[in-house]
Amino acid sequence: MSDRTRPTTASTSGAGELFQIFRDGRARTRSELGESTGLARSTVAARVESLLAVGLLRPAGEAASTGGRPPARVEFNPAAGVVLAVDIGASHATVAVADLAGTILSSATESIDVADGPEVVLGAVEAEGARLLDAHRSVPLLGVGIGLPGPVEHASGRPTNPPIMPGWDRFDVPGHLHESFPVPILVDNDVNLLALGERASSWPAVDDLVFVKVSTGIGAGVISGGSLQRGAQGSAGDMGHVQVPYSHDSPRQPGDERDLEAVASGSALALQLSEAGLAASSSRDVVELVRAGDATAVAAVRQAGREVGEVLATVVNLLNPSVIIIGGSISRAGEHLLAGVREVVYRRSIPLATQHLSIVSSNTGETAGVLGAAILVLHRVLDAPSVDALAAR
Amino acid sequence: MSDRTRPTTASTSGAGELFQIFRDGRARTRSELGESTGLARSTVAARVESLLAVGLLRPAGEAASTGGRPPARVEFNPAAGVVLAVDIGASHATVAVADLAGTILSSATESIDVADGPEVVLGAVEAEGARLLDAHRSVPLLGVGIGLPGPVEHASGRPTNPPIMPGWDRFDVPGHLHESFPVPILVDNDVNLLALGERASSWPAVDDLVFVKVSTGIGAGVISGGSLQRGAQGSAGDMGHVQVPYSHDSPRQPGDERDLEAVASGSALALQLSEAGLAASSSRDVVELVRAGDATAVAAVRQAGREVGEVLATVVNLLNPSVIIIGGSISRAGEHLLAGVREVVYRRSIPLATQHLSIVSSNTGETAGVLGAAILVLHRVLDAPSVDALAAR
Repeated sequence: MSDRTRPTTASTSGAGELFQIFRDGRARTRSELGESTGLARSTVAARVESLLAVGLLRPAGEAASTGGRPPARVEFNPAAGVVLAVDIGASHATVAVADLAGTILSSATESIDVADGPEVVLGAVEAEGARLLDAHRSVPLLGVGIGLPGPVEHASGRPTNPPIMPGWDRFDVPGHLHESFPVPILVDNDVNLLALGERASSWPAVDDLVFVKVSTGIGAGVISGGSLQRGAQGSAGDMGHVQVPYSHDSPRQPGDERDLEAVASGSALALQLSEAGLAASSSRDVVELVRAGDATAVAAVRQAGREVGEVLATVVNLLNPSVIIIGGSISRAGEHLLAGVREVVYRRSIPLATQHLSIVSSNTGETAGVLGAAILVLHRVLDAPSVDALAAR
Repeated sequence: MSDRTRPTTASTSGAGELFQIFRDGRARTRSELGESTGLARSTVAARVESLLAVGLLRPAGEAASTGGRPPARVEFNPAAGVVLAVDIGASHATVAVADLAGTILSSATESIDVADGPEVVLGAVEAEGARLLDAHRSVPLLGVGIGLPGPVEHASGRPTNPPIMPGWDRFDVPGHLHESFPVPILVDNDVNLLALGERASSWPAVDDLVFVKVSTGIGAGVISGGSLQRGAQGSAGDMGHVQVPYSHDSPRQPGDERDLEAVASGSALALQLSEAGLAASSSRDVVELVRAGDATAVAAVRQAGREVGEVLATVVNLLNPSVIIIGGSISRAGEHLLAGVREVVYRRSIPLATQHLSIVSSNTGETAGVLGAAILVLHRVLDAPSVDALAAR
């Protein structure tokens, strides 16, 4: 998160902390709140009042009466505001508006070229965001979450040596967007957001999950102990640059190693297949060859799955996840990639770590990225200090 | 943690939550507590009273007066109770008594053979624990933390297929110890506790840390995002069973792979050296040969460091820790192991992940295990529900 966008407030009103109780969606009476928190009746009343005033809580009918006037219940109001969720890839940008429960209300995808640089790409995002937000003028925009296809220093929101993003290195993404959207701006790596999005939509009860994107490049989003793990500098999940032997089926020579991206990514597969005389210059071509049943392409994708599986076997021993999700464009070429991954992981990893391990294909499709971006920013703009700042206005 | 030892209480008094504020060691007045929490004055007074009564808070002098009687301050009282901390290895058991701040008050180490089985080993631990606790009869024993040299299902406290612990598989360690010590019993893998202990004593501000124990076997304790990561079944950190090529310096043949323990552990090194005609049958022999300057032994330990480094390079890309600590008996053979690890990790990992990475030797020595065991159990017995249960007595 960017410090410049962190709301600050001198008063610690406590409304933000009370609000957290309502994020489970359940309605409550004021006296129930007093009992569960131990707060004085007047304190509960004042905090609920400020949350009702700012719209984050809303009336939710009446509880059963125990004699006298039935007590009023209040609940979280997801319609009190919206966030903008952005997923930027190498060649597309999806922009969405989500409510405060993370439900996508509207979205639009357009073709971009991330190599055009931050001014051009973020300009397109700003224009599209403003257009979508126009239909939600009645409620405040509380934040922007954005995923980029490269490593991001999460604390500053700046890309760090992103390989496929010329002109973006150290660019102040939050600072730039803040001029159009004067709200908290949170930036993260796109694969981290895919992990958050997949978890929220398909595996809400799972605390240990790894999402692997096999596309033009290869990256992973690691959720461990219930939290997205970014590491000390935000580069956690960089599976693509793990060193692997050159070829699994041929004798290995000393020093004869490459990183996983160089043997199993969409680009690497396209190169292999074109060297084999096939018409393949991109991930998309690889997927089409596999779908057309080309035996060389099928074998290459399955072998890529095995290479990914070699690295994942180590991940399984180290982190003992219960779910591994394989996504990205190459995963759309049928079950071949997944079959290769499974073959190696189940053979290689220790039984205790694999007996309850599911290895599955991503099924969230195009919206997982913006869903993750919405979750990222909602986590921040609805936390206790941020809600305190809203309620104190 | 074992469910059978979880304290339960129908009333949620709130004293436990208030108590958490004091764990930073700072003294506070009742009115400061009222301001920072928003709790009613009478609520604060009642909760502080119950914590004073049970001894978890103690008077801490008076704050400066603003007119009238100066307000009394209270603070956390680490002497209100003790915990028993136990570190069981293949051939030793260290038993210690710690106060509620995790300070080791007394400890004793004795030789055991973990292969004698749980009844014998835990019997010795119980006798030693009772002897040490005898000097602390005036304060209550609040819990027992215990580390075992094998995988442990953390939720049940039962070892799971521990390779060097015949007779221990699925043994109910908490249930057994509970007969002697009717308090919460928490069990974990010894390397996880070493990671907790090293962090507490040397790297308290570090949120992403990996501790690697290179001894008779090889294992890791992974702290990521500030939390010890156990994974879905508690087998996270199992570095020893990561598959590695047979030899890094010779051409690799398909299928010609072993796990890291088979090429870089103390047992593997002893085997290699004895095959080379040296008198080495244990990790201890290996360390002595290195300390005596034997060139073959030095080269073997350095190569073991490189093998460990190969796996750690993957860990660095995946988790981006800021500190890697190399411990275990083989690390005591001078800097050779560490030098091999550094050589590979800095060459292999991505620059963003290594530019702020420290790779160091463990310096906590024999007490890190029991310190970690104390931290493990204190985390539980001083949490809000447990303190509520104590205060409600």
